[in-house]
Amino acid sequence: MYLDRIKNPSLWAKVVSAESAAQLIKDGMTVGMSGFTRAGEAKAVPMALAERARHDPVGITLITGASLGNDLDRTLGEAGVIKRRMPFQADPGLRKLINDGKVMFVDQHLSETVEMLRSGQIGPIDVAIVEAVAIKENGEIVPTTSVGNSATFALLANKIIVELNIGHSASLEGLHDIYIPTRRPYREPIPVTSPQSRAGLPFIPVDISRIAAIVITDRPDSCASVSDPDEGTAAIAGHLTEFLGYEVNKGRLGLSLAPLQAGIGSIANAVMHGFIDSRFNNLSMYSEVLQDSTFDLFDSGKLTFASGSSITLSQAKMDVLKNLERYKSRLILRPQEISNHPEVIRRLGLIAINTALEADLYGNVNSTHVSGTHMMNGVGGSGDFARNAYLSVFVTKSMAKDGRISSIVPMVTHVDHCEHDVDLIVTEHGLADLRGLAPRERAPLIIENCVDPSYRALLSDYFKDALKLGGQTPHVLDKAFFMHAAYRDSGSMLPQLAKPKAKAAVAA
Amino acid sequence: MYLDRIKNPSLWAKVVSAESAAQLIKDGMTVGMSGFTRAGEAKAVPMALAERARHDPVGITLITGASLGNDLDRTLGEAGVIKRRMPFQADPGLRKLINDGKVMFVDQHLSETVEMLRSGQIGPIDVAIVEAVAIKENGEIVPTTSVGNSATFALLANKIIVELNIGHSASLEGLHDIYIPTRRPYREPIPVTSPQSRAGLPFIPVDISRIAAIVITDRPDSCASVSDPDEGTAAIAGHLTEFLGYEVNKGRLGLSLAPLQAGIGSIANAVMHGFIDSRFNNLSMYSEVLQDSTFDLFDSGKLTFASGSSITLSQAKMDVLKNLERYKSRLILRPQEISNHPEVIRRLGLIAINTALEADLYGNVNSTHVSGTHMMNGVGGSGDFARNAYLSVFVTKSMAKDGRISSIVPMVTHVDHCEHDVDLIVTEHGLADLRGLAPRERAPLIIENCVDPSYRALLSDYFKDALKLGGQTPHVLDKAFFMHAAYRDSGSMLPQLAKPKAKAAVAA
Ligand SMILES: CC(C)(COP(=O)(O)OP(=O)(O)OC[C@H]1O[C@@H](n2cnc3c(N)ncnc32)[C@H](O)[C@@H]1OP(=O)(O)O)[C@@H](O)C(=O)NCCC(=O)NCCS
Ligand SMILES: CC(C)(COP(=O)(O)OP(=O)(O)OC[C@H]1O[C@@H](n2cnc3c(N)ncnc32)[C@H](O)[C@@H]1OP(=O)(O)O)[C@@H](O)C(=O)NCCC(=O)NCCS
Repeated sequence: MYLDRIKNPSLWAKVVSAESAAQLIKDGMTVGMSGFTRAGEAKAVPMALAERARHDPVGITLITGASLGNDLDRTLGEAGVIKRRMPFQADPGLRKLINDGKVMFVDQHLSETVEMLRSGQIGPIDVAIVEAVAIKENGEIVPTTSVGNSATFALLANKIIVELNIGHSASLEGLHDIYIPTRRPYREPIPVTSPQSRAGLPFIPVDISRIAAIVITDRPDSCASVSDPDEGTAAIAGHLTEFLGYEVNKGRLGLSLAPLQAGIGSIANAVMHGFIDSRFNNLSMYSEVLQDSTFDLFDSGKLTFASGSSITLSQAKMDVLKNLERYKSRLILRPQEISNHPEVIRRLGLIAINTALEADLYGNVNSTHVSGTHMMNGVGGSGDFARNAYLSVFVTKSMAKDGRISSIVPMVTHVDHCEHDVDLIVTEHGLADLRGLAPRERAPLIIENCVDPSYRALLSDYFKDALKLGGQTPHVLDKAFFMHAAYRDSGSMLPQLAKPKAKAAVAA
Repeated sequence: MYLDRIKNPSLWAKVVSAESAAQLIKDGMTVGMSGFTRAGEAKAVPMALAERARHDPVGITLITGASLGNDLDRTLGEAGVIKRRMPFQADPGLRKLINDGKVMFVDQHLSETVEMLRSGQIGPIDVAIVEAVAIKENGEIVPTTSVGNSATFALLANKIIVELNIGHSASLEGLHDIYIPTRRPYREPIPVTSPQSRAGLPFIPVDISRIAAIVITDRPDSCASVSDPDEGTAAIAGHLTEFLGYEVNKGRLGLSLAPLQAGIGSIANAVMHGFIDSRFNNLSMYSEVLQDSTFDLFDSGKLTFASGSSITLSQAKMDVLKNLERYKSRLILRPQEISNHPEVIRRLGLIAINTALEADLYGNVNSTHVSGTHMMNGVGGSGDFARNAYLSVFVTKSMAKDGRISSIVPMVTHVDHCEHDVDLIVTEHGLADLRGLAPRERAPLIIENCVDPSYRALLSDYFKDALKLGGQTPHVLDKAFFMHAAYRDSGSMLPQLAKPKAKAAVAA
């Protein structure tokens, strides 16, 4: 029974099928949909929309919090429903459509999308589709496993479709803290001064008359596929915890460090796991997505509090959501505008740990574009955190594709994070502490500490040649991408691993 | 007489010559010095230090607010005093030393230097040298025409040298608002909610016992050399005011727009002048440096209030400082940490106008590195503002060096501001509104609206070739810098203007 989750009986008549709710979405509309890193996305209505598009073509601008689970981005993309997508995605199927120029992808800092919507610079939102665990007396929506941009979508939308997901535990209620910054020019400081701060309401306070449809579903969130820590990720975690221990010894940090942010993915997860066996304690998190490691850190007694915008778990950890009461007093889920807000990140002084695709000799980082052209996922929140953190850490394995790609290159082919926003680069070989260094000082340190030994000669030769031409940031422009060109032409940045010509042509 | 400017008689005995104060600075020290965009820098002591270095070599790390006047960066650089310099400079002589690798230049976002100092990530400050207009009863220092990083330097330094500049009008007192963020993890919101907000004290509250020397000088600030608006800068100003008028019509802005920030230099100054004859009114500024145009806007009745970190005037406008009482109630000078703070910039929702050296087809901007290698000035505050503004505008003339350089290139050779941080690009030819657009949509717009007609074919051919290779951000990596290579090899990006080989070799 679901009616006990819709507190206001006048809304019961709004319960309709996913198919009929999907009819509210017309060709050309802008749709704001819940969902952040595969957690808490609306599920039934977008599926029905993809189904409808088979016989009744419909194209929309889809704005979400971040990536979606349940293969929704692929399904909607392949059905031709997504014409324009922002601010993030992480789906191989949609990625292909984007890179083929069939979907216009507007990659954005995750804290900024709703600022632009609110001020009318993008949008307006025609329909919001928000997954909820309950609808309260006055129409207030209680989100599920993520908040993302849902609150602003619901507040701005012409019409709201609520997907009431009865598969989610009702105990999610009370977890959320919905704070929306006041209107400019009357905007007040955001009253969040620690990960624990509660600043808003535990629900989205929408105008009940704009709830146009309610759809009932019980479809679960997708699980995250987190690979187990391996030797490489363990070494990265080791270098970082050793460094932080050194900072503690220097008196720059206490044993509780500073609130931690960790990006999604296996390396970040491994790094967070690395804290379990460390001497640090009373740790806290002020992050975007809370992964398995957050709950392992709680269980180990190391972590006291975690603030995020979503909870994304692997299959093995899914029971956390069933036992939520155990963690609930130590958790808050916030709008991504607040979890990622420059104001709060700078105030709290975070240690931010994000993953690079590639970094260059001078500390510039590419997190998004393979070979400078092909989108992987998007910049996500990495820019919000890296720019404003107390300590901005980028982790990456020193090589990809079985050693045929070096993650450290002469010049990155795309810059998401400029040298000013990168304090540490960590690979399995070691760590380069770039704080207070000029570019010419950064390069030898990165080569020595972070580059795989097999690539060191290539990179130091480049640096030597570049030095001859001078400058604050020495480069040989004609050769800046020579390693990328070698990979494209021969299948390897390292000449020794180059494939015979014929094979390479097939690979490319 | 200067003694009336040192309110506490116990300090009178600290008055010494510049030479003997300079003796407090030892080889290897880190010195924090006042000065921001050629305003309010200490003058006598650094000159004495350069003099001393002739026979007694001394090398220091010099940290300032921003650029210095009175040729100090050149003089200190050429005397071999500056070994390491942060966070900004704008001096041709020092620039050469930096690009030759003789001075290590650490280019930083201007809001971040004192955060790093305060947390011990750089520094410590051995000696602070701060220009003052007065020293009060308990040793409180009243700065002159800039605040910059002076307050934090003075609060953190082991020893303080005050340069009492009796050439500055005593009426500067009361202009400053010194607010220092509270210590993490107890940091509170910064109580600045409008350009008018006063949050701190009108002086720097130092421990009187750390004032080690007082030096008397009357040397004036250097004047800014602002070129008069020309056809090009007037056209840029025209496009921007027209656009803002359109935003007003759309209801996205009111006639008082939003607090304005304008970078230094002729284009920014011309753009600000453009507001004088506009229909906008009740304008306000929340900027770094207040230039001539600020006072012309006051005089025209268009501007109600201006907040900055320094006042930098041309020769023609120098009398503003003599008639300060006329403007004082409408002015505040703040530490650059506050004028440039992400928290405040985001809260106020600024319109930020900064200058690009070059921009690329996708909206990435290079503000610092000529040909990707040679430092011009530094990123300054442009990153603080562009990332956090409501509307981030980059202006540039479409060409430099008499048309031999196009300021729009296929790929910028250095990225200071990534595509996410650039909303508008404006040249004399027109304006590209990039908000909500994917990279593939940005390129044709920029080519059509911003590129000089003589370069359009080169750039659209590149874009066409790039599209064949696909991707979110199409590029032909092997050709990405072909225009820069042409300029290097032939003296021109445009084949028609290429010089005969011999001449080009000389020019390079
Ligand atoms: C950078 C990012 C793509 C790394 O993802 P990850 O899953 O941790 O890293 P992996 O090492 O598994 O690499 C992912 C893929 O990129 C490939 N790759 C890694 N480095 C590469 C490089 N330099 N060049 C080309 N491909 C590379 C890997 O081989 C792998 O390919 P596969 O999927 O075909 O196996 C990811 O962290 C991201 O999207 N970041 C941007 C968003 C962000 O930081 N958000 C912040 C908080 S959520
Ligand atoms: C970008 C910046 C250098 C432009 O300065 P400006 O004085 O307004 O611009 P100008 O057009 O006069 O250009 C300055 C010089 O660069 C040259 N230049 C301009 N564009 C160029 C390009 N694309 N390639 C090579 N040189 C270029 C000009 O020819 C000129 O050279 P000159 O000094 O030999 O005459 C300056 O704004 C800056 O340093 N910005 C970064 C800091 C900042 O934005 N701070 C923010 C607030 S203060």
